[in-house]
Amino acid sequence: MGNADYECPHRVAIPPSKPFFKSLTTSLKETFFPDDPFRQFKDQPPSRRFILGLQYFLPILEWAPRYTFEFFKADLIAGITIASLAVPQGISYAGLASLPPIIGLFPEIWQWVPLLFHHFSYLLCWEREVNPYENPKLYVQLVLTATFFSGIFQASLGFLRLGFIVDFLSHATIVGFMAGAATVVCLQQLKGILGLVHFTHGTDLISVLHSIFSQTHKWRWESGVLGCCFLFFLILTRYLSKRKPAFFWINAMAPLTSVILGSVLVYLTHAEKHGVQVIGHLKKGLNPPSLSELAFGSPYLPTAIKIGIITGIIALAEGIAVGRSFSMFKNYHIDGNKEMIAFGMMNIAGSCTSCYLTSGPFSRTAVNFNAGCKSAVSNIVMATAVMITLLFLTPLFHYTPLVVLSSIIIAAMLGLIDYEAAFHLWKLDKFDFVVCMSAYIGVVFGSVEIGLVIAVILSLLRVLLFVARPRTIVLGNIPNSTTYRSIDQYPDANNIPGVLILQIDAPIYFANASYLRERISRWIFDEEENLKSTGETSLQYVILDMSAVGSIDTSGISMLEDVKKMVDRRGLKLLLANPRSEVIKKLEKSKLIEEIGQEWIYLTVREAVAACNFMLHTCKQSTNATAVEFEAQDIV
Amino acid sequence: MGNADYECPHRVAIPPSKPFFKSLTTSLKETFFPDDPFRQFKDQPPSRRFILGLQYFLPILEWAPRYTFEFFKADLIAGITIASLAVPQGISYAGLASLPPIIGLFPEIWQWVPLLFHHFSYLLCWEREVNPYENPKLYVQLVLTATFFSGIFQASLGFLRLGFIVDFLSHATIVGFMAGAATVVCLQQLKGILGLVHFTHGTDLISVLHSIFSQTHKWRWESGVLGCCFLFFLILTRYLSKRKPAFFWINAMAPLTSVILGSVLVYLTHAEKHGVQVIGHLKKGLNPPSLSELAFGSPYLPTAIKIGIITGIIALAEGIAVGRSFSMFKNYHIDGNKEMIAFGMMNIAGSCTSCYLTSGPFSRTAVNFNAGCKSAVSNIVMATAVMITLLFLTPLFHYTPLVVLSSIIIAAMLGLIDYEAAFHLWKLDKFDFVVCMSAYIGVVFGSVEIGLVIAVILSLLRVLLFVARPRTIVLGNIPNSTTYRSIDQYPDANNIPGVLILQIDAPIYFANASYLRERISRWIFDEEENLKSTGETSLQYVILDMSAVGSIDTSGISMLEDVKKMVDRRGLKLLLANPRSEVIKKLEKSKLIEEIGQEWIYLTVREAVAACNFMLHTCKQSTNATAVEFEAQDIV
Repeated sequence: MGNADYECPHRVAIPPSKPFFKSLTTSLKETFFPDDPFRQFKDQPPSRRFILGLQYFLPILEWAPRYTFEFFKADLIAGITIASLAVPQGISYAGLASLPPIIGLFPEIWQWVPLLFHHFSYLLCWEREVNPYENPKLYVQLVLTATFFSGIFQASLGFLRLGFIVDFLSHATIVGFMAGAATVVCLQQLKGILGLVHFTHGTDLISVLHSIFSQTHKWRWESGVLGCCFLFFLILTRYLSKRKPAFFWINAMAPLTSVILGSVLVYLTHAEKHGVQVIGHLKKGLNPPSLSELAFGSPYLPTAIKIGIITGIIALAEGIAVGRSFSMFKNYHIDGNKEMIAFGMMNIAGSCTSCYLTSGPFSRTAVNFNAGCKSAVSNIVMATAVMITLLFLTPLFHYTPLVVLSSIIIAAMLGLIDYEAAFHLWKLDKFDFVVCMSAYIGVVFGSVEIGLVIAVILSLLRVLLFVARPRTIVLGNIPNSTTYRSIDQYPDANNIPGVLILQIDAPIYFANASYLRERISRWIFDEEENLKSTGETSLQYVILDMSAVGSIDTSGISMLEDVKKMVDRRGLKLLLANPRSEVIKKLEKSKLIEEIGQEWIYLTVREAVAACNFMLHTCKQSTNATAVEFEAQDIV
Repeated sequence: MGNADYECPHRVAIPPSKPFFKSLTTSLKETFFPDDPFRQFKDQPPSRRFILGLQYFLPILEWAPRYTFEFFKADLIAGITIASLAVPQGISYAGLASLPPIIGLFPEIWQWVPLLFHHFSYLLCWEREVNPYENPKLYVQLVLTATFFSGIFQASLGFLRLGFIVDFLSHATIVGFMAGAATVVCLQQLKGILGLVHFTHGTDLISVLHSIFSQTHKWRWESGVLGCCFLFFLILTRYLSKRKPAFFWINAMAPLTSVILGSVLVYLTHAEKHGVQVIGHLKKGLNPPSLSELAFGSPYLPTAIKIGIITGIIALAEGIAVGRSFSMFKNYHIDGNKEMIAFGMMNIAGSCTSCYLTSGPFSRTAVNFNAGCKSAVSNIVMATAVMITLLFLTPLFHYTPLVVLSSIIIAAMLGLIDYEAAFHLWKLDKFDFVVCMSAYIGVVFGSVEIGLVIAVILSLLRVLLFVARPRTIVLGNIPNSTTYRSIDQYPDANNIPGVLILQIDAPIYFANASYLRERISRWIFDEEENLKSTGETSLQYVILDMSAVGSIDTSGISMLEDVKKMVDRRGLKLLLANPRSEVIKKLEKSKLIEEIGQEWIYLTVREAVAACNFMLHTCKQSTNATAVEFEAQDIV
């Protein structure tokens, strides 16, 4: 040791102040364009730029030139697989959303989990406003209108580069929220399983259970037995396919098999006359364009907008999270804002053609992935298969029992209750677990909005609490080194006699300035008392390590002023270590730097401690600076 | 150099995991009891504890034994001075709050700026609900009820140790808010100055200006001239006393002088018959106990509660800020929560005895301070003086012109417009300035609530934005040292060939996990492109400096997992430097530590870089480790 930087510490330079406009531009860019979306356009000739621009908005241009026959074969198989899953589910979900089944059959690109999820959240918001059973036409209109606004909202978020709003729905929130939603939907499906005709419109656990158990005399055992059998079958196939990926096909085919089996069974036994409700007549043909059906003039417009925004944001959070996790496998980059524009466009288009809330337009879901699809072509195949079903095969669904559809929905919903994720949260981060459970309980006992609001507020509170109550940490010297670290984390770190080193662990803002003022005083007071009672060297220097203070505001500056005054009054000396760019700039502008003295601001804690030691020993009449150096080394 | 810690880097220990209950207790204590209020009770015999406990709730027991005659003399003079300020202001503010003047005259402990402020904010909320001119009895009842709830709210915040809520009203917010409030009150007082009888109940700039200029024909010039003269007098005395503290007395006496002069003038000239309105008859005597007047059964109860909470929180923020700034001069410690309980108690007591919203019960305001008061005795003196005025001198105010009271209010309000503070904010922190101006504009053009809500939301947004968009900083080696610092802040810091050092500048939470994932990828991608184009050593190591990452949640952990995967896929190696206690614990629990490899986690950036250099050079067939050491030194 004893090298140069002990004698001549490095100065903390005050960075040259950038022009206001330039620093504003930089921080705006970091905030809204972190991904630098136009990076690839740089240094390109105009013609190339044009092509890249087209590809940006129409991804097909990007992958079409590289598309091969091998890819097509994979896509074909994947498309048909998904269609076989999509058709029965489509009918089920249309039933779930209380829409005429025909509408459920043709969302342009069929999605598995997310879509389901939205239909549900849709409904919850919805049933309280318009009763779909009594006024189906108005209901359909409003669902489409909400989808339209949902699309507008999503696309505008994307265009305005506000993708980060979605990040405030944390993973924990979504896990709890999805499980809660799934639980409520399962409970609702008991209506179908038990063959009940009248049912509560409430969505919370209590009113559903009340509704079920208040009409035990109306339960239909035929329906119940059939439902349980199919449910068992579906869960079993899922379990198998989870155990062995090769069994994936079984799981994918299970819903179609159930529908066929169920229909045949009903047709043969005429069970529809014995309490098993069937779908009945389905209108053949494609959905009529529904632009004219959008209910812009309706008095329900504000409700439609509200629901559109809520479902839009949940769909985005969920869709982007799913997309992101698959992009990791595929080494594929996701541009959140671009994704949002795409989501939004899909929904606008969908609402104008009688389809509803889609998510994940790029089809990167588990099913697609497992089915081995290579590109969006699989979606085209699937759409074609669904279209053929719509055009020619609808009469086949006449005898499909509703209880099978309920079973399909329950089986899918049970898959959404991710208890393993909840357990993982508990193990890793208790607070995240609390957020997750609040979302769940809020949804199950209250409503979708209550669950969502509670979870988001809790998550935000955590962030605010982190800033409002930053930790202040006492640092000590790690033995045999010149490094200073938290005494709590490294119990063998040593205190430096006469010096108190405090690290502040967050930006200093109005929200924590008073707290830090109190806490720092208390650290100093406690340390002084301590040293007094043990009779050691009294406290002489206080070093504030500012390494983790990324930002400071005016309240923070006046807090530092107060600390400086307080330290002076106690006859101590205040040193700063490693103030960051923004902090040192503001210290200079507020003239506080002159009060503290620039010579008391050091680049590292090490240099600050060396300076303190030097002075402590000089005071003890040690005249030879070099000797002090060596003494100081013995201490550190 | 070449000292030991290069060859044998220090391990980052995983701190022993504390029992769940203990760590919960610790963090709850840090959050709610940062000041350790029961510290002084520790290690004391029970009798001493009892005395300390009494002193805690009744501060008089603390200072009474040390009270001397010298102190009393100072307090007597201070008390009389403040009373001479309090009596005219009391009448004015009661007028301002549209209360019968008698009520304004006896708040137990009279405060200058803060009280004024509350009356005002009171009013704004109020006038829209109950018209004080038409139904004064109901109005008084409701003001008292709101005061009561305000007290309950403040005291409960204190008891529940929620003092930190007040910290969310930043200094910038209060500056803007006060100035806005003062502007609006000044505008309202134009009614008195111009001698208008009818006036708008709106509080925003536009409706007030409209009301004034739509009745220019009703302006009374006698009233206007008188008002301007007194206003000039009051402002002049304030200016003088600001210039020379010795002139403080002039300023303190100015309001009383104005009242006397104005009354005498009106009495002699019979101006009350020429358009100058006077106070008229004042009921003699003390306020009757008003417990029975609290309007608990009234349909306005919810409004009263709402207003009580709003005014209560503003009063606290303001009162505590004032108290804190004076405590710095007096070397006096303020316990925010204890303060709140006191505030609350004062308001509850006040509302039951017909006084209204007080703040700063310990009287640490500028006036008290300048008048040289030593203890709460000065308040007793003042209260006595006010009481004598109430009992015997009220008839003297019969001829006091209202326009003088308006002038007193305007002069006081102009003092609240702290344009110097606003300029300071602009210079130091542009964002704080924006917050301040939003509060001002919100109050002046909208209403008190609008201003407050805008300012608080903006302030919170800043905190959230800091967490949602943390900076990632490239570190470089400071020449002639082993220190690594931001290349932006220290432009002469050098890159290490083949190594990218990134510092993450905030806790990693759900709110920023996606952002960081994108941003880190882009740093790595950009760096690779850069090195490719310049033909330098290709990128081999990525060091994440976690020094400033104080906390991490499950989303953060999965972000790190993704980064690790991404780095692996690119054939690079990920190193962590200085993970903090919480981070390393969660890395361990999530098994991510095994994926990264504990040998790739270093205590300091320096050690991580040394390891990278060592390996880079070993790959270049350099077999002698010591030689590598020296080469590495040349580079750093």
